Amino acid sequence: MLSCPFPISDYPYITMAHGGGGSLSKKLIDELISPVFSNPLLDQRNDGASFITPGDSLAFSTDSHVVSPIFFPGGDIGHLAICGTVNDIAMCGAQPSYLSVGFILEEGFPTNDLWKVLQSMKRTADDAKVQIVTGDTKVVEKGKGDGIYINTSGVGVIKCDPPPAPTRVQAGDVVILSGDIGRHGIAIMAAREGLELETTLKSDCALLNEAVMSLIDAGIELHCLRDLTRGGLASGVIEIMDTASLSMEIDESTVPISKSVRSVCEILGLDPFYTANEGRFIAIVPATKQDKALAALRSHPLGNDARIIGKVSSGDPGLVTVKTSIGTHRILTMLSGEQLPRIC
Amino acid sequence: MLSCPFPISDYPYITMAHGGGGSLSKKLIDELISPVFSNPLLDQRNDGASFITPGDSLAFSTDSHVVSPIFFPGGDIGHLAICGTVNDIAMCGAQPSYLSVGFILEEGFPTNDLWKVLQSMKRTADDAKVQIVTGDTKVVEKGKGDGIYINTSGVGVIKCDPPPAPTRVQAGDVVILSGDIGRHGIAIMAAREGLELETTLKSDCALLNEAVMSLIDAGIELHCLRDLTRGGLASGVIEIMDTASLSMEIDESTVPISKSVRSVCEILGLDPFYTANEGRFIAIVPATKQDKALAALRSHPLGNDARIIGKVSSGDPGLVTVKTSIGTHRILTMLSGEQLPRIC
Repeated sequence: MLSCPFPISDYPYITMAHGGGGSLSKKLIDELISPVFSNPLLDQRNDGASFITPGDSLAFSTDSHVVSPIFFPGGDIGHLAICGTVNDIAMCGAQPSYLSVGFILEEGFPTNDLWKVLQSMKRTADDAKVQIVTGDTKVVEKGKGDGIYINTSGVGVIKCDPPPAPTRVQAGDVVILSGDIGRHGIAIMAAREGLELETTLKSDCALLNEAVMSLIDAGIELHCLRDLTRGGLASGVIEIMDTASLSMEIDESTVPISKSVRSVCEILGLDPFYTANEGRFIAIVPATKQDKALAALRSHPLGNDARIIGKVSSGDPGLVTVKTSIGTHRILTMLSGEQLPRIC
Repeated sequence: MLSCPFPISDYPYITMAHGGGGSLSKKLIDELISPVFSNPLLDQRNDGASFITPGDSLAFSTDSHVVSPIFFPGGDIGHLAICGTVNDIAMCGAQPSYLSVGFILEEGFPTNDLWKVLQSMKRTADDAKVQIVTGDTKVVEKGKGDGIYINTSGVGVIKCDPPPAPTRVQAGDVVILSGDIGRHGIAIMAAREGLELETTLKSDCALLNEAVMSLIDAGIELHCLRDLTRGGLASGVIEIMDTASLSMEIDESTVPISKSVRSVCEILGLDPFYTANEGRFIAIVPATKQDKALAALRSHPLGNDARIIGKVSSGDPGLVTVKTSIGTHRILTMLSGEQLPRIC
C-alpha cells in the first residue's frame, strides 16, 4: 500500500475544479494520480508518451468501463479497466506494453474511492507488466455521470505470425474454452441486487495475457482468440462464426459451469451461455494441435480447467448449435441486449 | 454526406440494449458506426487493431471529451474529439496515424445526433489523414451521463529527434504563439448561456498536425510544443516553466486577441490568457531559429498570424510574468479551476 501524498481529508470529494486544468487539477494529478503510476515515460509530463518499438507488428485496443457497482466481489472498476484492455490486446496474440487511462469523474465522487481504484489499477498493471504512460482526467457535474468511468487504451507487440483473427478460422478447427463461465455477470448482479448467496461467488475478472502467451510459446497455430465479456460465450462464438461464415457445434456437457452460477441462473431464469465473463476466453485451433494446446493452456492457473467444447464445420454460415445433455440440439441466437446492463 | 444504412427512424433514441453486446449492439455498430469509419484495419472486427510500424519512435496519447453543449459554433464534440488527440500527438512532434474511439452514450440520446457526430468525426479524421481502427461503445442509464462522452486515443510516428519536451526548454529560447487566443472558450460559453453577440464568434477548434509538420519540415529544433486547451495560454506556459524550472516573460502587446473575445471577456470579467483554445499552440525554439520558425509557421493557414510573444530566462523557477501595455508587470498564477467547466 502506497502512502498518499494528496491531502484526501482536505478534499474528501471531487469538485468541478479538479477537472478544470488549473491548480486543483494539477494537484490531483501531481499528488494523487501520477505518483501511483510513476514511470519514466509518464513522468515526462508531455501531452503524450513517446517510446520506441523495434519494428514490430503492434496491436491497439480501447475499452470504456462503466461497471456498476464499482466495487464488487472479486474486483473493482480499476482492476476491470486494466484487465479489459490487457485482455483485448492479448486476444490479438500480443503482449501488452503500454496503456493510457482516461477518467471521467462525477462531481462529489469520494476521493478515497478514487485512491482505492488507482491502487487497484497499479497492482493489476504491475501484474500484467504494463506501464500506464499517458492519461486524462475530466470532471462532470453531479447527476451527469455515475461516480467514475474509466477508459483504457493500449498498445502491445504481436507475438504470433500471422495473428489470430475470425477470418482465419477453418472448418475442422476445435474450440477450447479456458475455464468455467458466468461468474462475472452473476457476481455483479448479486452485488447490485444485494442477493445473499450461500457461497461467496466472485467475479472471474483476471489478466489473460500470460495464459495466451503459454499457447504462443508452445508454438500453437492460433486461428482465433476471443475473451467472453458482454454477451458471454454465446455472443462471442456467434460473432466469430458470423465473420468466418462457418458453423459451430458446442457440446453442452463439456462447458464447465460452477454449481453457484448454475443455481443462481436457474432461480432467476438467466442463461449462463450469455452471462459475462472477464477472465475466460476461447481459442480456436487446428484439430491436429488440440492436445498440445490443451496441455499448454492447462499449465497456466487460469487455464487448468480448459476443455474442448466444440468444433467448427462448413455448415450454415453463422449457425451455432448446442448439443444438450439430453441429446437434442438448440440453436444459439444473439440476445437483443445484455441480460444485465453495465457489467463492464 | 454518407447515406445511413441504420434505420434511425426505428430507433430514434439510444436504448440500454444498444450497449449490451447483443444483436442491437451489433446492429448499431455494424450499420451505424463501422460503415462511417470503414477501413481494412477496423474491418478486421477483432478485439483490437493490428498494424506494423517501421521501427519508429511512437507517440501515444488519450483524451476524454465531455464538452457541453455537444454542438457549438465552429464545431461539435466529434470534431473536437478527433482534433484533441491528433493535436496532443502533434505536440509530441509526431504525425498521427491511428486512433481508437470509445463512446459512452446516455440512454435516450437521439440517434440522429450520434449520426451527425460520427460524420463530423469521419470528416475530421480524413482531414488529419488518420484512421479510426478500433473502438468501443457503452450505454449508461438516463441520468447517469450527458448524451455523449467520447474518448479518443491515438498513436503517431515521431518525426523529430530528439522529440520536444518541457525538459528541453533552455534560457534564451523564444516563445512563438500560432495565432489569436480565447475563441473556443468564449464560443462554448456563448452557446451554453445563449448569449447574443453582434459578431458570430466561432471556436478555433482545428487540426494542428500540418502546422507542426511545417516547423519540422523546415528543420526547426523544437524544444517544446503545447496546445493551449483547458486553462488557456497561461496554464500552458506555467506548467512548462514549472517542469523546466525556468522563467518566462510574455509581452502582452504581442498576444493577438480578437475584438469579440476581448469585448466578451471585459464584460464578463474573464481573462483571455486563461480561456481555452482548441486550435492554437506555442512552440518554444532557440532564438537563433526564430525567423526561420516564424516563416515556416506563417506559411500554414493556421499559423499565418504567428508571433514571438515571449522569452525564456533563468529567473525564478516556474515564474511567468506579463509585461502589460502600460509597461507594468503582472505575475501569471494558475487558477484553481477553469473559468468555464466542461469546455472540452
